[in-house]
Amino acid sequence: MMLIKQFVSGDEFTGFYLLKEVEVKQTSGGAPKEYLDIVLSDSSSYISAKLWDASKLDVETFVPMTVVKVQGLVQTYRERLQVKIIRLRKAEEEDNVSITDFIRSAPISTEQLVTTIEKVISEMEHAEIKAITTYCFNKVKDELYAAPAAKTHHHAYYGGLAYHMVRMLELGKFVCEQRPFLRADLLLAGIVLHDIAKPAEMNSSYGIVSDYSNQGKLLGHIHLAVSWITEAAMKLEIALDAPEVLGLQHLVLSHHNLPEWGSSIQPQLPEAVALHYIDAIDAKLQMVEDTLHTTPETEEWTPFIRGLENKAIYRLPLK
Amino acid sequence: MMLIKQFVSGDEFTGFYLLKEVEVKQTSGGAPKEYLDIVLSDSSSYISAKLWDASKLDVETFVPMTVVKVQGLVQTYRERLQVKIIRLRKAEEEDNVSITDFIRSAPISTEQLVTTIEKVISEMEHAEIKAITTYCFNKVKDELYAAPAAKTHHHAYYGGLAYHMVRMLELGKFVCEQRPFLRADLLLAGIVLHDIAKPAEMNSSYGIVSDYSNQGKLLGHIHLAVSWITEAAMKLEIALDAPEVLGLQHLVLSHHNLPEWGSSIQPQLPEAVALHYIDAIDAKLQMVEDTLHTTPETEEWTPFIRGLENKAIYRLPLK
Amino acid sequence: MMLIKQFVSGDEFTGFYLLKEVEVKQTSGGAPKEYLDIVLSDSSSYISAKLWDASKLDVETFVPMTVVKVQGLVQTYRERLQVKIIRLRKAEEEDNVSITDFIRSAPISTEQLVTTIEKVISEMEHAEIKAITTYCFNKVKDELYAAPAAKTHHHAYYGGLAYHMVRMLELGKFVCEQRPFLRADLLLAGIVLHDIAKPAEMNSSYGIVSDYSNQGKLLGHIHLAVSWITEAAMKLEIALDAPEVLGLQHLVLSHHNLPEWGSSIQPQLPEAVALHYIDAIDAKLQMVEDTLHTTPETEEWTPFIRGLENKAIYRLPLK
Amino acid sequence: MMLIKQFVSGDEFTGFYLLKEVEVKQTSGGAPKEYLDIVLSDSSSYISAKLWDASKLDVETFVPMTVVKVQGLVQTYRERLQVKIIRLRKAEEEDNVSITDFIRSAPISTEQLVTTIEKVISEMEHAEIKAITTYCFNKVKDELYAAPAAKTHHHAYYGGLAYHMVRMLELGKFVCEQRPFLRADLLLAGIVLHDIAKPAEMNSSYGIVSDYSNQGKLLGHIHLAVSWITEAAMKLEIALDAPEVLGLQHLVLSHHNLPEWGSSIQPQLPEAVALHYIDAIDAKLQMVEDTLHTTPETEEWTPFIRGLENKAIYRLPLK
Amino acid sequence: MMLIKQFVSGDEFTGFYLLKEVEVKQTSGGAPKEYLDIVLSDSSSYISAKLWDASKLDVETFVPMTVVKVQGLVQTYRERLQVKIIRLRKAEEEDNVSITDFIRSAPISTEQLVTTIEKVISEMEHAEIKAITTYCFNKVKDELYAAPAAKTHHHAYYGGLAYHMVRMLELGKFVCEQRPFLRADLLLAGIVLHDIAKPAEMNSSYGIVSDYSNQGKLLGHIHLAVSWITEAAMKLEIALDAPEVLGLQHLVLSHHNLPEWGSSIQPQLPEAVALHYIDAIDAKLQMVEDTLHTTPETEEWTPFIRGLENKAIYRLPLK
Amino acid sequence: MMLIKQFVSGDEFTGFYLLKEVEVKQTSGGAPKEYLDIVLSDSSSYISAKLWDASKLDVETFVPMTVVKVQGLVQTYRERLQVKIIRLRKAEEEDNVSITDFIRSAPISTEQLVTTIEKVISEMEHAEIKAITTYCFNKVKDELYAAPAAKTHHHAYYGGLAYHMVRMLELGKFVCEQRPFLRADLLLAGIVLHDIAKPAEMNSSYGIVSDYSNQGKLLGHIHLAVSWITEAAMKLEIALDAPEVLGLQHLVLSHHNLPEWGSSIQPQLPEAVALHYIDAIDAKLQMVEDTLHTTPETEEWTPFIRGLENKAIYRLPLK
Repeated sequence: MMLIKQFVSGDEFTGFYLLKEVEVKQTSGGAPKEYLDIVLSDSSSYISAKLWDASKLDVETFVPMTVVKVQGLVQTYRERLQVKIIRLRKAEEEDNVSITDFIRSAPISTEQLVTTIEKVISEMEHAEIKAITTYCFNKVKDELYAAPAAKTHHHAYYGGLAYHMVRMLELGKFVCEQRPFLRADLLLAGIVLHDIAKPAEMNSSYGIVSDYSNQGKLLGHIHLAVSWITEAAMKLEIALDAPEVLGLQHLVLSHHNLPEWGSSIQPQLPEAVALHYIDAIDAKLQMVEDTLHTTPETEEWTPFIRGLENKAIYRLPLK
Repeated sequence: MMLIKQFVSGDEFTGFYLLKEVEVKQTSGGAPKEYLDIVLSDSSSYISAKLWDASKLDVETFVPMTVVKVQGLVQTYRERLQVKIIRLRKAEEEDNVSITDFIRSAPISTEQLVTTIEKVISEMEHAEIKAITTYCFNKVKDELYAAPAAKTHHHAYYGGLAYHMVRMLELGKFVCEQRPFLRADLLLAGIVLHDIAKPAEMNSSYGIVSDYSNQGKLLGHIHLAVSWITEAAMKLEIALDAPEVLGLQHLVLSHHNLPEWGSSIQPQLPEAVALHYIDAIDAKLQMVEDTLHTTPETEEWTPFIRGLENKAIYRLPLK
Repeated sequence: MMLIKQFVSGDEFTGFYLLKEVEVKQTSGGAPKEYLDIVLSDSSSYISAKLWDASKLDVETFVPMTVVKVQGLVQTYRERLQVKIIRLRKAEEEDNVSITDFIRSAPISTEQLVTTIEKVISEMEHAEIKAITTYCFNKVKDELYAAPAAKTHHHAYYGGLAYHMVRMLELGKFVCEQRPFLRADLLLAGIVLHDIAKPAEMNSSYGIVSDYSNQGKLLGHIHLAVSWITEAAMKLEIALDAPEVLGLQHLVLSHHNLPEWGSSIQPQLPEAVALHYIDAIDAKLQMVEDTLHTTPETEEWTPFIRGLENKAIYRLPLK
Repeated sequence: MMLIKQFVSGDEFTGFYLLKEVEVKQTSGGAPKEYLDIVLSDSSSYISAKLWDASKLDVETFVPMTVVKVQGLVQTYRERLQVKIIRLRKAEEEDNVSITDFIRSAPISTEQLVTTIEKVISEMEHAEIKAITTYCFNKVKDELYAAPAAKTHHHAYYGGLAYHMVRMLELGKFVCEQRPFLRADLLLAGIVLHDIAKPAEMNSSYGIVSDYSNQGKLLGHIHLAVSWITEAAMKLEIALDAPEVLGLQHLVLSHHNLPEWGSSIQPQLPEAVALHYIDAIDAKLQMVEDTLHTTPETEEWTPFIRGLENKAIYRLPLK
Repeated sequence: MMLIKQFVSGDEFTGFYLLKEVEVKQTSGGAPKEYLDIVLSDSSSYISAKLWDASKLDVETFVPMTVVKVQGLVQTYRERLQVKIIRLRKAEEEDNVSITDFIRSAPISTEQLVTTIEKVISEMEHAEIKAITTYCFNKVKDELYAAPAAKTHHHAYYGGLAYHMVRMLELGKFVCEQRPFLRADLLLAGIVLHDIAKPAEMNSSYGIVSDYSNQGKLLGHIHLAVSWITEAAMKLEIALDAPEVLGLQHLVLSHHNLPEWGSSIQPQLPEAVALHYIDAIDAKLQMVEDTLHTTPETEEWTPFIRGLENKAIYRLPLK
Repeated sequence: MMLIKQFVSGDEFTGFYLLKEVEVKQTSGGAPKEYLDIVLSDSSSYISAKLWDASKLDVETFVPMTVVKVQGLVQTYRERLQVKIIRLRKAEEEDNVSITDFIRSAPISTEQLVTTIEKVISEMEHAEIKAITTYCFNKVKDELYAAPAAKTHHHAYYGGLAYHMVRMLELGKFVCEQRPFLRADLLLAGIVLHDIAKPAEMNSSYGIVSDYSNQGKLLGHIHLAVSWITEAAMKLEIALDAPEVLGLQHLVLSHHNLPEWGSSIQPQLPEAVALHYIDAIDAKLQMVEDTLHTTPETEEWTPFIRGLENKAIYRLPLK
């Protein structure tokens, strides 16, 4: 079966893909007809596709997150590839395909990622930090197997959030070795907690975010995580003004490093400074890696990357 | 006894005043001697004063927040008035003066202010909003009699925070009458809660802030208040994701109206929009009023006001 | 007759509506044909509509601001409702409908609004302020019955400008009672004058702005209003440097509260500070109210509101 | 007599200078005494000076803008030169010196500058533009002989405003020759009018600004000039919405080229674009020239120049 | 033959034009067909055009930068003129037309422009400045006959870069006469060098930029020009830290006048200040002139101009 | 000998210290006398000190960067410690002290640091990258033993630049292992070259920067480094447009990650993104570490740190 990333203009293909997005539209000409404006995806990439002259049944059948069998033609439209769908049907049990075969996911199995994070927590020596981190981690553990780290910016795929945490934990340990004045438990707990409420901020399935939750819009994941730490401390009977509660809440609150403008808080603990920059380097390099990965290797330049000040990345032909 | 606001260059006076600030300094000339660089205050205003050739005993005796009897001379220095102290002693019991006679305070008694706020809370109809507001209010009620609303910006005096709340509650009720689609309980609770954690953010006595607390610096009063609402809900067994918890936390979080940049949250409820602008109008007009009040009436222009984009206010001679 | 706000996908309807906007477009398919891309409106809301295969006569007949009888079908297109027009004709005299039945307008009759403003002016005690305000008011009185306060931002409907003034006058009086150091005549005159030149800045009919005038683009309504005050003073033989002229011009000039950067002027009178914040709170709350009003009640969130930092408003399900 | 610009540390000198600024200060040591903190100036530069142990008489005698005879010693203090005054007296009639000998002034006589401007106006062909320009010019003609263009930024000396106009008129004519689509009368009138109200915005004598007027602070010179054009049109019975009034007001309003943010207006006529950039180039190059002129030639770098983004200018040793 | 600038809706015409841009698109209706979305241009202006039902041969034949014979119909679409192409063929030798007849170009022949620049260089007196300028100039001399100064902003046509240089050289000489403290050789060399690497930054033909080069994206024309000066100095055996190398590199580096933020350099030589403002005035006035030139004279307002803060220019009807 | 970091108010001490800064000032009282305003330093910290009644000889003897023997008294002045000098003399040969005993320096010997960097370069596999890096490195190798990385921001001490490089090289290698798509030679060379021209930008001795060089002000270290790469390529006969030259110049140019605003270049290679964030994390954590190190351990909060948005760091009392 042909991977989407390998499509070339003129290809005719048949295979299974995932309907990542589906919109019903009408042609604007004489007697307007309905058609489906689709985003097909597999584990390698995604592509725009059209099903012209869609029947009522088509509209009802082909909803987002459905695996389908497609016969299609690859064309060029406005300098981008696009699929004209010739035949389309839902995958059936006999086809023996599963949605998880068609989604992008972290390069390491999420079971392994979650285990790694649990191991880091279990090795913490500071009892209260360990307890609070465990409490918050358990609130989302089940969702962590799938949750992405963001809607589009970076690590936007199955297991992306856990993958982001694991990479940051590796970097965090290395930096603590370089600079022993950093308190490792505090920094590693900050890494685990800084984005821990993202699964409550965004509604997602199979690593694909559909939208933000009401809580997500009105409070945001940072303030949710801060509330979870309050909740954990109350349940664990740790004083709300204990240094470890103050420290963990400060790390979460300040990790975006905003200017002191109104309610925002900037890093004022060494570990908070470290957390911000470890988060930044991991997120930015992952954006670069993901974009290079989904850009055909024949392209010298990737598309523009929003999170990198909207710049593209160049494949420098170093020998 | 002469009020500081009435001092004119050349006056010689004797009276009781408060040592609001005291710093020990050394003259820079030949054989350096110690002197005290003082801010004297009373209920009308404040003024810089010097006690030259301070003895060891003077340094130990004259500490901030002491009421003293001063014989002094009013001079002009760098276009501003300043007092040269001739004689100075601590007030004694027989003098029959109290520190509260010398501090600036809200124009309404703080007992009355606190009673007014309690009445507004007691009249709320929404049971959970009323309960959460009561819980948080009681955490600081004792401090509210004295607490200022800010270190210098606005309402920076005895009872200033309660006064700010009461004025905002009046405006809030008026706006709810103009626009019945606003839910009064939610808005009024938001007004009570938006700055409720300020007494925990700043260390103050008699309405004068000495510095920020560690909690204040690391979390800020907004996030403290949000945590208090979480705490209240847990104690009161209200679900943490109930609409009233979400709504009150959103009002507090968004009242500085920051751009959506990282962790910041902007108003997304009608009452949150109202809260922000009611807070703004009350704070800004109070800055104007306070500055006019402490500026001698012979001055056409007040000093520059930081919170008003550093502009001065002009006394327009309208007939 | 069905109100636009009540339309549901699948409805078929017949009724009278206003052609708020009409654009002639061509289908992009094979042999391109003309069609009309229309915005229909009534007093409740507005909706996009298409007339396919428009004849030359259609193009000439159906121009903006015409009341028409429509038979149409409500469809969903790109997640929004849209009308496919089946039959369309101009309203005739026998239909007994008037354009004013189909426009959005302030919730209070504009006659009443204008009368209210006149009453406030007539009660002013400062003779020159009253005379200047009257002079400027009379320049636009006839247009005030219809003029909107803005093209889209807020109060963008029939009588919107007068409604904005009246609400601000109510707030202004309340604030003057709270804070007697404010000079009511100056503030109330400033409220009347701050947007008084908007009818000269924007071309509108029935409260709908078609475009900005050349004067509006080259000078802007603020500088036009300042010139009108100069003109009024000259006609009334008031010195151009009299405090009341200076004060009123300053209130108008500074009401957007810009940083002192080049030619911009920031509030430096107490009444100018009050004017700015009263304008802000009224405009922002009206944006919220208008948007909630035109959003179907089945929607949890309104569309994004430009003037509120592009945030949406949430209908919090408080019991 | 030694010019200030030529002073070297260690010099002892006697001569006549102008007291540009005088402040009475007190020494901070043991028994504080008064001294005068002075800025001495002549036509070449200015320098800080101290008169220690000032008597009451000294304080009364030595006020700003007095010409004095000074015997002094040049010393270095904080890496800058400073004068210790040994003897000081007011200049008397027999000394035969005049204040105009001690002020910095434009390099061309102001009589000549004013004549040049009048000639440019007299050669305008467009009757109304010529009449309006003449009217406004005559309002300040008497002050133009002395008025500076700014307090400190550029052309801050006797005749500086007229000098700025003349240089801009030269550039304006050259640009009109390069680009005949520009209407010379409109551009040249804009050059004359753009800063015409500066004498009403700032109080100055002999080209030295002491402070801003109340009108200057509350309205600013740009809006004053716009009002003058309105006044001129009314007196000359030119319609207030005639293109020439609109054009001239637009040129004045937009010459600072602010972003469209609230009340500000940006250039939207070709001549308005030209005016902004001609103003900029003349002001910036004059800052450079003035700063190089008042910096001792032994210095490689000038002081930082606020109007040039706070950068210093380097004397590149090109052979 | 009809010039594009003279087209009026309804015109039918036959003539030769240049295919400036061609994109293959598909109609979105029923059975999608290909059509060509074209930009036709001649020396007067440009216009959008469509060739419906394009065959495979059409797609291969009609590529950008081809001169064609067109029979077409001028229509109005979305308030703009557009051409419906009826017949289309490539120009043949017998047609006796050349691509250079159809491109916009500087109003002076580029031969003359290049000669003028060479003359200015040849008259320089400072040997090293002259040698470095000559070296860099010769690197691009052949390209200067055609190169535009920008992709769209200003002087975006055949010979535009040379034209920009010549105009700036005229202004530069005038300013040096006004202000003799400016060193003419340094300033004029800076004018020649400031944009000299633009031909290496952008790929263009006949004055039309197709895209940026990889060097252009990764280094930018400013840093390329700085490197060329290094290269020139090494070849000419001038020390890399000689004042003339330093001066010329500084002029190039600082000509965009950025705030000192990281690697950016602001003008710190008098000639660098002059260069920045001469560049600005020439570029901005040319944008105005070009936009007026390509806007039909019947339009009161030009389109918005990006480089002028996105403002339009008004044709003020001065008599 | 007592370390400065251990000074407590009231201490009297005798020992050797370095005169890091010396300024001659005058007392402002009656008969002004000269005194020396000094910064004393040793390897642990630095402190302000005064020598009252300085003689002419004192002024000539005690110049910056002299090692002296001091008898002094530690006092508190404006809440900070300060030394009143009782006796002072230059260190003599018999004292057997060397300036290097009194300067702050990197925690690893600079010989070791330089050797480490050379080893990394020697292990590069890409011949041209290795050659260019070696060429540039050798230009400053001798200065690298002492050069600081900045004037005050971070690594502002003896060997600070080499220390910054070494730490970044460690991090760079770790990140390359985490993410094998990064080309290690390019990234490591970028780390060596990104600040390589700092010794030419700043004049320093013993790790203390006295000022910026003229080259530093006019071109800046980034553009100097880019020129050195051009110079290296020419000497090594590598084409100036070879990918390795382009890549290295891009890494240097973009490492401050400026928005694309005029001449500035942002990271567009994966290694450039990595370089920017590795530079940031190392610089910021070093600021934190250095500030904690020089702040007495009795202080809960450090002073404000400019490079960290002017925030202080808190010593959280985690058990």
